[in-house]
Amino acid sequence: MFISLLKEQIGSDKVSQSESELYRHSHDESPHQAIEPKVVCFPECSKDIEKILNIAYTHNIPVTAFGIGSGLEGQAIPIQKGISLNFERMNNVVDFSPEDMTITVQPGITRLQLNKLVNRHGLMFPIDPGADATIGGMVATNASGTTAVRYGSIRNQLLDLEVVLADGTVIHTGTHAKKSSSGYHLTGLFAGSEGTLGIISEITIQLHGIPEHTLMARCTFETLEACAEASQTILLSGIPVMRMELVDATSIDQVNTYGGYDYPIKHTLFFEFAGMQAAVKEELKLAKELLHDLGCQDWEVASDPKEQKEVWKSRHELSYAYTHIQGTLDTGADVCVPISRVPEMIVYARKLIEESGLKGGILGHIGDGNFHTIVIFDPKIEGEREKAFYTNEALAIRAIEVGGTCTGEHGVGLGKMQFQEAEHGAAVEIMKKTKQMLDPTGVLNPGKMFR
Amino acid sequence: MFISLLKEQIGSDKVSQSESELYRHSHDESPHQAIEPKVVCFPECSKDIEKILNIAYTHNIPVTAFGIGSGLEGQAIPIQKGISLNFERMNNVVDFSPEDMTITVQPGITRLQLNKLVNRHGLMFPIDPGADATIGGMVATNASGTTAVRYGSIRNQLLDLEVVLADGTVIHTGTHAKKSSSGYHLTGLFAGSEGTLGIISEITIQLHGIPEHTLMARCTFETLEACAEASQTILLSGIPVMRMELVDATSIDQVNTYGGYDYPIKHTLFFEFAGMQAAVKEELKLAKELLHDLGCQDWEVASDPKEQKEVWKSRHELSYAYTHIQGTLDTGADVCVPISRVPEMIVYARKLIEESGLKGGILGHIGDGNFHTIVIFDPKIEGEREKAFYTNEALAIRAIEVGGTCTGEHGVGLGKMQFQEAEHGAAVEIMKKTKQMLDPTGVLNPGKMFR
Repeated sequence: MFISLLKEQIGSDKVSQSESELYRHSHDESPHQAIEPKVVCFPECSKDIEKILNIAYTHNIPVTAFGIGSGLEGQAIPIQKGISLNFERMNNVVDFSPEDMTITVQPGITRLQLNKLVNRHGLMFPIDPGADATIGGMVATNASGTTAVRYGSIRNQLLDLEVVLADGTVIHTGTHAKKSSSGYHLTGLFAGSEGTLGIISEITIQLHGIPEHTLMARCTFETLEACAEASQTILLSGIPVMRMELVDATSIDQVNTYGGYDYPIKHTLFFEFAGMQAAVKEELKLAKELLHDLGCQDWEVASDPKEQKEVWKSRHELSYAYTHIQGTLDTGADVCVPISRVPEMIVYARKLIEESGLKGGILGHIGDGNFHTIVIFDPKIEGEREKAFYTNEALAIRAIEVGGTCTGEHGVGLGKMQFQEAEHGAAVEIMKKTKQMLDPTGVLNPGKMFR
Repeated sequence: MFISLLKEQIGSDKVSQSESELYRHSHDESPHQAIEPKVVCFPECSKDIEKILNIAYTHNIPVTAFGIGSGLEGQAIPIQKGISLNFERMNNVVDFSPEDMTITVQPGITRLQLNKLVNRHGLMFPIDPGADATIGGMVATNASGTTAVRYGSIRNQLLDLEVVLADGTVIHTGTHAKKSSSGYHLTGLFAGSEGTLGIISEITIQLHGIPEHTLMARCTFETLEACAEASQTILLSGIPVMRMELVDATSIDQVNTYGGYDYPIKHTLFFEFAGMQAAVKEELKLAKELLHDLGCQDWEVASDPKEQKEVWKSRHELSYAYTHIQGTLDTGADVCVPISRVPEMIVYARKLIEESGLKGGILGHIGDGNFHTIVIFDPKIEGEREKAFYTNEALAIRAIEVGGTCTGEHGVGLGKMQFQEAEHGAAVEIMKKTKQMLDPTGVLNPGKMFR
């Protein structure tokens, strides 16, 4: 049987069938339902992955890669009985070159671990999806988050990936040069492929310098449209904001209730400005002028770290404020649309939540046109799950209709498979052929991305 | 015969076999040797491209796309007798949305035409490879140039491509949203594929705001190593330079001789700082301090447009200074290496040029680790072509050895095919399979990219 083969080839200490491990690897932070894997493997090097994939390929056993389980669309949890590949023992730095501003890491390192290492050299890895996800998981879903408005998604930070293909072949998709026009861009193809095309075993990242100075600000607007319009104005002004986030009034109310605060219960925009001190001050000044011209209220600025934490608190505590409610689950949309369509989309989102009768809020990386809903449901109350999921579906469909995407950063996984044809049309056939080319027997994360 | 079919289906005014057209479409700005196509087609819409590809597919006729002929590696000139696809009649704007900071264009529009259109809305398309290339050609080679140090390559600016596949199927690779984690990243795959995977028929681009203020500066250093070290210091400082260029002393000498100037004959760095006025001033101040600590000389700053032109003149006139010599051709390396390897690589490049006995210079987008040689040869003198090409080869091999790429921005075409295995190893098999998947009969730009 393949499990004894696994033990034989990579060592039995790297193979577990304990009930707690099987359970852990059947859950992520999404509300999606998966099954337990048959076995969990803990590879310690690329060679281990090669051996595991060789066995999987020969015996036709599904393989699903698992980072830390912070995914929101079920990418890392299996729906076919097989091997779960856990990267927690592959969290080392392979090569760090501060003078090149590059680092090569194994996929199991988390973004906070990575930043702790590089920060002391004045460097940073800017991508911040909220959770302390593994870099491997972030690459596999093309994660982004609050800083994408300035740095783009993680795909834009990648120089090279080492990938173990379904048949055990190991390839490198790039080099350590900052740019290249050589060959086809396989780096971009494997990034965001959610473990369906190959298993990423090493990641080389372009780092950035830590900005000298940071300022944070917060303000409120009467309407969601005004918030969207304000963010658009800031973008067009050319101010290179580090972060620009929206939290709607209902969510602020929820944060107040949960945390005992008294933030103005209004739609709120959060800003972070970062760069050289003089630049940041100037940017803040211009932003303030522009936002006041648009009628913003409750303008607050913070410069020292403690104040900054305070100003952003209501943004940071938001998901906890919703998800602390015992026994409930939450589901969230992740649409991304052209900036000009953001106002109508946010209004539509609010309407959908209200029509569902469920508790929910809107928050977003508004500078990218990417926003989320958080809709709370009780899985024990009949119909609530369906109502909550319906808000997501309706938003995804509308986003595609206005020229956007069903997922700006969470990925497809199980939750967005149903929208692939609507969003990608005839290109889905090319995607499926690509899958077929790289994983002819379908052992890599089967049942994800495409139906 | 297929030519009469072409005339019948797209109209005979869009089909030419005139000797001058056939000749024009067998030459680009590279020294590579190609052949004349059998026929040149001038499609006016995606539908025309579909029809042409259908005919080509059915009759197994090679199709090579041609932008404006500014390519440096022979991508746009055929080496198998067939159809040359000229995009000069497809240079329209399909959709321009200033409020979204996006534009959708046909491939035949050039980057200066595009900028003229969007500049009046305070927007810009920043990618500047020097030549006034077509956007289609730039996408097909993943072009970049002087501003890549700040904005990345053109691949990073793309939101969506419309691509006509070999069999005539039309797909869209993305959406109009700023980011997406949906499906596989086909946009990145077609960008840089040099017309070998599909014909790009529409391009949607993310634009940027025009910076409020610009300052330019120039300084010299005694050694090439010192120039490389200086550029590394600037990068690590976090100053978001708009441009950072190197021209070596020999090339400055050439510019002086050609233009009658008296620039200091030393290795020279050129800088452009751009952003909000206060920020730019601060950046310039810091850069000056850092560069002076490293021993820079001849520091000059220009703020008004006329002065700026003057300061950059020796950079701008460089290629003319070399290529004006009657009857000569030039060839240039295009390596890109990790920043820390730039000093040794530049010294090696200088040594290679000197050993060749030919006239040549070095210039580079040094902030990206991407630099070029310009080596002049007389094709009528036996052995000169080989000597010139040898400098490129030796540099490409060394670049790959130090973790870099054989081409940072010019692409593979005919000139870099021989290095694909060395650079990409086992990944070349995946690239070839991708080609086979998308172009099973091999009608799309045959004989390019891979041997």
